[in-house]
Amino acid sequence: MEQDEWRIVEKGFDPARHEASESIFSLGNGLMGQRANFEEQYSGPSLRGSYIAGVYYPDKTRVGWWKNGYPEYFAKVLNSPNWIGLAVIIEEVSLDLYTARIEDFERVLDMKRGLLTRSFTATLPNGYTVKVKTERFLSMHRPETGVMRFTITPVNFSGNIDFVTGINGNVINEDANYGEQFWNILHTEAWPNRAVLLSQTKKLDFRVALAMNLHLVGKANDIEPTKEEMWSGNVIQVAGVENESIVFTKYVGVCSSLNHPHDQLITSAQKESADALEAGFEHLLKEHEEHWENIWHHSDIKIEGDAAAQQGIRFNIFHLNQTYTGKDERLNIGPKGFTGEKYGGSTYWDTEAYCIPFFLATAPPQVTRNLLLYRYKHLPKAIENAQKLGFTDGAALYPMVTMNGEESHNEWEITFQEIHRNGAIAFAIHNYIRHTGDEQYLDEYGLEVLIAIARFWSQRATFSQVKKQFVILGVTGPNEYENNINNNWYTNKIAVWCLNFTLSSIQKVKKRNPEHFGQLVKKTRLDQKIETKLWQSIADNMYFPFYKEQNVFLQQEGYMDKEQIMAHELNPAIRPINQHWSWDRILRSCFIKQADTLQGIYLFEELFDTETIRRNFNFYEPRTVHESSLSPCVHNILAARTGDVQKAYELYLRTSRLDLDDYNLEVHEGLHITSMAGTWMSIVEGFGGKRVYDDGRLRLAPVIPQQWQAYSFRIHFRGNQLEIKVSKENVEIISHASQKTSLIVYDKPVEINAGESCTIPLNPDFNAK
Amino acid sequence: MEQDEWRIVEKGFDPARHEASESIFSLGNGLMGQRANFEEQYSGPSLRGSYIAGVYYPDKTRVGWWKNGYPEYFAKVLNSPNWIGLAVIIEEVSLDLYTARIEDFERVLDMKRGLLTRSFTATLPNGYTVKVKTERFLSMHRPETGVMRFTITPVNFSGNIDFVTGINGNVINEDANYGEQFWNILHTEAWPNRAVLLSQTKKLDFRVALAMNLHLVGKANDIEPTKEEMWSGNVIQVAGVENESIVFTKYVGVCSSLNHPHDQLITSAQKESADALEAGFEHLLKEHEEHWENIWHHSDIKIEGDAAAQQGIRFNIFHLNQTYTGKDERLNIGPKGFTGEKYGGSTYWDTEAYCIPFFLATAPPQVTRNLLLYRYKHLPKAIENAQKLGFTDGAALYPMVTMNGEESHNEWEITFQEIHRNGAIAFAIHNYIRHTGDEQYLDEYGLEVLIAIARFWSQRATFSQVKKQFVILGVTGPNEYENNINNNWYTNKIAVWCLNFTLSSIQKVKKRNPEHFGQLVKKTRLDQKIETKLWQSIADNMYFPFYKEQNVFLQQEGYMDKEQIMAHELNPAIRPINQHWSWDRILRSCFIKQADTLQGIYLFEELFDTETIRRNFNFYEPRTVHESSLSPCVHNILAARTGDVQKAYELYLRTSRLDLDDYNLEVHEGLHITSMAGTWMSIVEGFGGKRVYDDGRLRLAPVIPQQWQAYSFRIHFRGNQLEIKVSKENVEIISHASQKTSLIVYDKPVEINAGESCTIPLNPDFNAK
Repeated sequence: MEQDEWRIVEKGFDPARHEASESIFSLGNGLMGQRANFEEQYSGPSLRGSYIAGVYYPDKTRVGWWKNGYPEYFAKVLNSPNWIGLAVIIEEVSLDLYTARIEDFERVLDMKRGLLTRSFTATLPNGYTVKVKTERFLSMHRPETGVMRFTITPVNFSGNIDFVTGINGNVINEDANYGEQFWNILHTEAWPNRAVLLSQTKKLDFRVALAMNLHLVGKANDIEPTKEEMWSGNVIQVAGVENESIVFTKYVGVCSSLNHPHDQLITSAQKESADALEAGFEHLLKEHEEHWENIWHHSDIKIEGDAAAQQGIRFNIFHLNQTYTGKDERLNIGPKGFTGEKYGGSTYWDTEAYCIPFFLATAPPQVTRNLLLYRYKHLPKAIENAQKLGFTDGAALYPMVTMNGEESHNEWEITFQEIHRNGAIAFAIHNYIRHTGDEQYLDEYGLEVLIAIARFWSQRATFSQVKKQFVILGVTGPNEYENNINNNWYTNKIAVWCLNFTLSSIQKVKKRNPEHFGQLVKKTRLDQKIETKLWQSIADNMYFPFYKEQNVFLQQEGYMDKEQIMAHELNPAIRPINQHWSWDRILRSCFIKQADTLQGIYLFEELFDTETIRRNFNFYEPRTVHESSLSPCVHNILAARTGDVQKAYELYLRTSRLDLDDYNLEVHEGLHITSMAGTWMSIVEGFGGKRVYDDGRLRLAPVIPQQWQAYSFRIHFRGNQLEIKVSKENVEIISHASQKTSLIVYDKPVEINAGESCTIPLNPDFNAK
Repeated sequence: MEQDEWRIVEKGFDPARHEASESIFSLGNGLMGQRANFEEQYSGPSLRGSYIAGVYYPDKTRVGWWKNGYPEYFAKVLNSPNWIGLAVIIEEVSLDLYTARIEDFERVLDMKRGLLTRSFTATLPNGYTVKVKTERFLSMHRPETGVMRFTITPVNFSGNIDFVTGINGNVINEDANYGEQFWNILHTEAWPNRAVLLSQTKKLDFRVALAMNLHLVGKANDIEPTKEEMWSGNVIQVAGVENESIVFTKYVGVCSSLNHPHDQLITSAQKESADALEAGFEHLLKEHEEHWENIWHHSDIKIEGDAAAQQGIRFNIFHLNQTYTGKDERLNIGPKGFTGEKYGGSTYWDTEAYCIPFFLATAPPQVTRNLLLYRYKHLPKAIENAQKLGFTDGAALYPMVTMNGEESHNEWEITFQEIHRNGAIAFAIHNYIRHTGDEQYLDEYGLEVLIAIARFWSQRATFSQVKKQFVILGVTGPNEYENNINNNWYTNKIAVWCLNFTLSSIQKVKKRNPEHFGQLVKKTRLDQKIETKLWQSIADNMYFPFYKEQNVFLQQEGYMDKEQIMAHELNPAIRPINQHWSWDRILRSCFIKQADTLQGIYLFEELFDTETIRRNFNFYEPRTVHESSLSPCVHNILAARTGDVQKAYELYLRTSRLDLDDYNLEVHEGLHITSMAGTWMSIVEGFGGKRVYDDGRLRLAPVIPQQWQAYSFRIHFRGNQLEIKVSKENVEIISHASQKTSLIVYDKPVEINAGESCTIPLNPDFNAK
């Protein structure tokens, strides 16, 4: 692949890489998405996938040995009816890149414009040669509209060409637990150049209508509207003329019952499609490009002197924005977005831990606020989840994996024990408020969630009679290479933080909004004496494992009993260990899958001095195998924080082009959408040193990797937008704000007037102190 | 149910209890077994099951989330072609106890004779009344022969009755993971009064031929041999006469490819069946009864003054002997024997920990020896199992669950972590030798197994740099309500014992059999310097958790951090906790599923003084919920050992009639065959105080529960048989031996000449000292 700053370019077609490319070149617009499947028939290996945000299926759980508390259903993203298909048949032979001879194949994802194009010359097995160009986008401006244009030119013949194009409801999920089909097709209808299909998911009765309007440039001999049980469309014969292009433009409306009443779905989809036809391809594309221009204005990162890094980070920003636009608080960000089915497409703590920092800084506050509201609306389900596990009195345990608020993961060591996720969800509220200043959110929504989470921690902690302190037993920390451990430092830390933050939030809301607080006390039946006293007592008397000999926080009790081998001592042939070692061996090794104690130090960094951070980093980094794509960014940030820019850069490289270069040979399953936010964090929080501490002030402390000439990024902060340009010599901060901005750069306060800029010499040694 | 000393009697028919009765009244003869299904049609809930020892199916594993090292297949006992069927049709209506009106129903399992009978009078929906008596047994004398006699008498009519009887190959496993049928039927054939069916298991190609010969008393109008794809038999019309009995006797031969070449299966089964016909029902039954008489002579326990206890213990001894006869070292004892499909019917450590003590004392040494050879023959597979988990150099990890030596369980916390099973398998070798004096077994087979197990432990232990001792991390002990714990006292204890026993065995064998030892060193590539030195070092420097404050061994590290609630404080409504609590809650509670530290004290009892045993018992017993049927017997034995007979009796009651009284409402799934040995242990080792310590001497120290008048049991010991009668006043020891027997009673040596007896006053306070 070429390293173009704005485009992902694939030259020449390799069927073995096709499924990976289908992931990489995926399109999405927040409301729907699709893998970069070919429009024409393709008989080689391919994962055909189109997805509609919020439309899921509760597939029956598959489990070896049932344990009490397991969820019965696993909510999974649904592969939905597909509208891109356009089969091309010349003299009874299909155009199929798996069987044709191909020349000049080029596939391009233009990230600036959000446009997927493809061009090639193909010679069919029967000798006919055609030149093809395809263009496709999912409108950001009209998110229920998808458009594709297919241009085909006979090269060595004149003669009839048959086209079959329509909407295909005969789709299955690759990951169906018991091989079932998840859709009923309720209605199909076709007219010349038009077709419609109404589909319904089994069990939950989500409905999706798809309507198409075709525009054809070329001489149609015959247009035959056709409907089948699961398909509707047109069979069209066009009289092809050598060197004259035939152009199909397909304008599609996709409307789901999330946004339309059942009885208006078909008409809405038809209107969407007809409006698009009327607007025309060029106009629609222009609207769409303008939308992307605005996104890039908020979120672009520029890197000079490193085209690979430049392409990598834009790729990440592009896909994050394709996946989630922040307009609908019922939606969230699946680990694979719209690019694959793995992990069920549900919500993980990735959202709070990685995506929220990204969206907080690169998008208006509403975007993050909707991600918080998503969890707020799931609070009753989180309380139910906790009840299933024996918790009482309104304690909430948010699910590890969810689509609708219910837990849908079924490994006890994760589902029941990886409870730190509750902390991330609470922390996101704090992070949002300190970043945006939207204190009202705490009063209206945040505190209610915090109280339920505090209750969970207070019930989950145990007072140890031997330690005379509170302990948290039987957990899995962020490092999932340890299960059922006692006193995971990170979990204990975030539990205590949750309790303290809830207590201080109660005081805040009580004081500034006594009436609302009164209602909340009533609603939650908060006992202000007994409950808060217990919370304070737990927060004040929590046990934290510590390793005196090296003066570091200890990931969990007993960690030092393990054989202490460093990751670099491992034979590269047995890495990643999760592909080579049995689970018990991984568990009893000292190897850490992803940042755990360091994740805690990252979250609460302002509590620790540089020496402490460095000591812990130096202890844990060599033991960490980073077998989660979410890991290196945290290590990168702490390496940069302690002045080790070279180490930070090495860590940055581990994920910066994870998908583009397919490090782990798994991109065919989909992209690591949520990890992409981690790469952004590496640049902005790692190299840029961007922080908002509890004092609510924006901080920067930029360094620059020696491999780069310069880099720049933009930050949203309390209604202002700043552009930060870092070169080898200077840090330039440009205000795109309408008011004066105060921030702290290298620990020194800086004020910048609206529209002005300020330049400060780069201080590469600052962090090392 | 009536409490009859020798018989299990069910009076009156309750369809809701039928599946439970099908388990309770099961028949077996070591080579085959069957649930007590009805011969005639039955349309109510029923689990039809016939099983053939050693014939299994590797069903594809079902798992939620795959982990490296999981087995691909789960070997499960196979429900096999069924030969008991005899449908009775009167005027087009089937005799079916689910639809008929029933009077005088009685079902009897005569444990003395090994005979299942049933009698009833039934009135069909069309008004015809018949009296029926059935008799059935699986010959102990001819283990490939099964016999059933069906006597039916028209009560209120004369007229034709249609009978359909044959061999049915259309069977499925209730627990098929993906609902598949596991048999192919290769051949069916029928002749008047005869039929044959040849079946083949899918995947592994086990073959089983079944042949029947019918004998009819009654006037047959018509006999129609019939064969279908999966069934062969006869359709017979008999002219019924009021008050005249029609008697069908069905003689069946069942031959499997475990014992016959493929091409002789059908003829062998036919011969077996024809021989049985020739011998006749009465003769066959007599042979069978004689066989049982011999079994009871070896293994009976008599209890006076407690009919329920008497029936309970005979029920257990009966089923243990039905399940395993010790003739074939390829066979073992599934937790449900031939009475159900749960747990796959495979081999667990139950065999070594519970069944071997039973068979050692109640059967000739060959029986236990075959159980040991079963594991010896699986040694190469155990080495493979260990290799899959990363162990090297001939280390062996025996599977948790197996049919053919391969692991077939797939929960990582069990499969990979419940490694103490390896210790039980080593200990059984020791137990066998000290009990039988068969030292040669060590030289020929035992040591090779021990070396492989010692290698496992030495690789599995880790040297802790902080403790400066060896630790064993990430295990599940016998108490499965804790997973992935560090330094389980029991596991560490048995690991050290294994290492020491292997080291001393090496010295022994080397000395007495240097040539054989030389071969073994070659075969195992034993490094006598490096390996044994490491083993010694681990054995000498193992860490054992200890709770100083109460001076007790600690089940595992961190146990005292748990909230210490006693089991009796639990609300009875939430017990058993495994049906009410989520798994994480169970894990972090202090509750113990089954004897763990106490299991270790039981195994190595002679190492501990009474005070130590009592202290540990008093600590652990109140924390133990005994949610495994294998647990109470160990606690019973230790309670009796420390003189607390009342407590021992309470614990005895928890399993003595577990299945007969269906304490846990799960008998319909099958009987707890291996637990039955625990009840035997409770009486003989608990109340009787029977021990064989490492000095190889037999010890007794009887006590008697106040609820009993007297009890007696028999013990095989080094070729001698002793009968021990315990009354409120005396212990009488009767020698059925051909030579003088030495033993120790209450710590005093006793010698008894062949055929003589000796009486010693009961010393109820002895154990308390």
